Amino acid sequence: MKFTCPKNELAKAIQINIKAISNKPQMPILSGIYIHAENNLLEIQSTDYDIGIVCKIEADIEEEGSLVLSGKYFSDVIKTLPGDNIELSSSNLQNTVIIKSNSAKFNLLSMSSSDFPKIKQLESDNHFTIRSNILTELIKKTSFACATEMIRPIFTGCLLDINSVSLVMAGTNTHRLSVKKEILDNYDTNLTAKLVIPAKLLNDLSTLLTSDIPVDVNVVYTHNQISFSYDNIYIVSRLIEGQFPDYNNVIPPAFSTTVTIKTHDFQSAIDRVSLISRSNQYNIINLDFTSDTLLLSSDNPEIGKAEESINVKLAGSPLNISFNAKYILDVLKYINSDEIYFSFNSETSPVQIKPTDDDMYIYVVTPVRRNK
Amino acid sequence: MKFTCPKNELAKAIQINIKAISNKPQMPILSGIYIHAENNLLEIQSTDYDIGIVCKIEADIEEEGSLVLSGKYFSDVIKTLPGDNIELSSSNLQNTVIIKSNSAKFNLLSMSSSDFPKIKQLESDNHFTIRSNILTELIKKTSFACATEMIRPIFTGCLLDINSVSLVMAGTNTHRLSVKKEILDNYDTNLTAKLVIPAKLLNDLSTLLTSDIPVDVNVVYTHNQISFSYDNIYIVSRLIEGQFPDYNNVIPPAFSTTVTIKTHDFQSAIDRVSLISRSNQYNIINLDFTSDTLLLSSDNPEIGKAEESINVKLAGSPLNISFNAKYILDVLKYINSDEIYFSFNSETSPVQIKPTDDDMYIYVVTPVRRNK
Repeated sequence: MKFTCPKNELAKAIQINIKAISNKPQMPILSGIYIHAENNLLEIQSTDYDIGIVCKIEADIEEEGSLVLSGKYFSDVIKTLPGDNIELSSSNLQNTVIIKSNSAKFNLLSMSSSDFPKIKQLESDNHFTIRSNILTELIKKTSFACATEMIRPIFTGCLLDINSVSLVMAGTNTHRLSVKKEILDNYDTNLTAKLVIPAKLLNDLSTLLTSDIPVDVNVVYTHNQISFSYDNIYIVSRLIEGQFPDYNNVIPPAFSTTVTIKTHDFQSAIDRVSLISRSNQYNIINLDFTSDTLLLSSDNPEIGKAEESINVKLAGSPLNISFNAKYILDVLKYINSDEIYFSFNSETSPVQIKPTDDDMYIYVVTPVRRNK
Repeated sequence: MKFTCPKNELAKAIQINIKAISNKPQMPILSGIYIHAENNLLEIQSTDYDIGIVCKIEADIEEEGSLVLSGKYFSDVIKTLPGDNIELSSSNLQNTVIIKSNSAKFNLLSMSSSDFPKIKQLESDNHFTIRSNILTELIKKTSFACATEMIRPIFTGCLLDINSVSLVMAGTNTHRLSVKKEILDNYDTNLTAKLVIPAKLLNDLSTLLTSDIPVDVNVVYTHNQISFSYDNIYIVSRLIEGQFPDYNNVIPPAFSTTVTIKTHDFQSAIDRVSLISRSNQYNIINLDFTSDTLLLSSDNPEIGKAEESINVKLAGSPLNISFNAKYILDVLKYINSDEIYFSFNSETSPVQIKPTDDDMYIYVVTPVRRNK
């Protein structure tokens, strides 16, 4: 194998591929990046069996072939090279690759490409296209609500609910639920599916889809896999098996009281008041709603007390209710509108938080029981 | 006690004081910040017994007094307050302080000010003044060379050699030595002393002295303490006891060969070549000097090889010599000149690195023995 290509293109592709390499690979070959050179195209693959990534870049190929290089060292070497172009070639020495750029030359040990579990394109009639900015919006507004512990795997994924009128994404850790809906143009209304996608994959995907100009992302799925492809990048992931709770049953159908609160005031008051509570496991802050004021407070016998009041508009009955401060702060980060509706029924039943200007984003959180 | 003061002034003072609070205080009171309010001046103190810091700021004092607050929480609370001013007052409740700013109110538990080991101003006839930019230059160019392990405490400090003509600072970990000299204007030529100052204190001090406009720093020392004061800040530290090696004996008096090397070329070539060696404990790179070329290389049987050549000007005899790459890279970061002189006698004797435009900065490093 021998090719020349622009350093930045290769470095970018490797940076993406690195995301599929586990810190503790199940087998040595999975610590590697597979490179296949053919028809003036490099195909670069990596996988941890759960996720697979394929990037394609153009190259000036003198001799076709395949090989596998350590992901970590290949990435470090390419990033650091001095020139605009790099030349990569198999050496006469067995299992060695020579990488040259200007006056720098590296010999890296390679692994056998026949050992690498090549990634195959997912084939299915179930496919649709979504704009990248809409996909990242779905991901960012829901994936933070997922569980991080692997005890119940179903809650480490986001539900993607595909139905005839919309796409809905939902994440929950059983204490809180975040649901975002999108109505798509040009989207095949015959599709119906409920897929649970690992939140880690979705977060990786949303960090890749940060281009200012939205691109089309092609989504293909089967009963146990899903793939996302755009530009020269293809990402495939297993789906999480199991029954995701019906989010429509978790969202209370009606509320006795709705409070309108300025998002920024609420966020900075919780930020301050939770200074006192956050060293405690449950990080409990108390919210005392009256007709035109919300008094936030927290208490820690070893540190002291904090309180702050902000102006609100309440339609309904006053209430005194407590929460894990983190569960409220988390969602406020993803709300862009100036005001939110904070709706409740009683001090023990779930409350709903939503932006005043977006009916398609709903967050539900369960209060904590207070010691009286 | 009751006072009002600008939030930013107080937050800045606390940020400085926090540097003297240990993560594991020897006694609970040392986790605290001492505040003394008198004559419209707040004096804010902190100490870990090794280092003491005093900051003074103006305040509108309604009731004088002293108290001690948890450094961590006092810092977090003040930083986060919403208003431009804060009001702090003792509460009627015992051991409680009330801090108010706009609509936010905190009650923090306080500790008894009588338990706090108050910091006294160091009194001595041994004192001089140095510009802050010159002091930070001395510190930055030498303190990185100190040892970080506490096995031999003397090497965790920098020597400050005060003599009739100059100030010299030196740091070493026995494998390398960095020496920077400054000739000062208006400086009392009668002083003579060799003080070993903890590198950690010097590094903290240099991060505080970053103002664009140089200030005068007053230095006072006794046989076992040194203090630095400038603006409204006073820092006192113990000195490290013991005999610091005579740096003049470590610097070889003459060299058979001197090579002129472009600083940036050398730095980036070592950066790349050491990619292969840095996972090894000794991080060994090999330098092969010939009349107009330096070939840098490294080798790791588990990863591969790297080599790169750069143009140099050699006056003397060619040599093949090896180093811990980190020990060369470290000093190149602090050399501002475009070129350096790299001088040596043999592959086993110490080499000298110095900027071509600064006779008062010298770095000496011992080569590593190679397996042949």
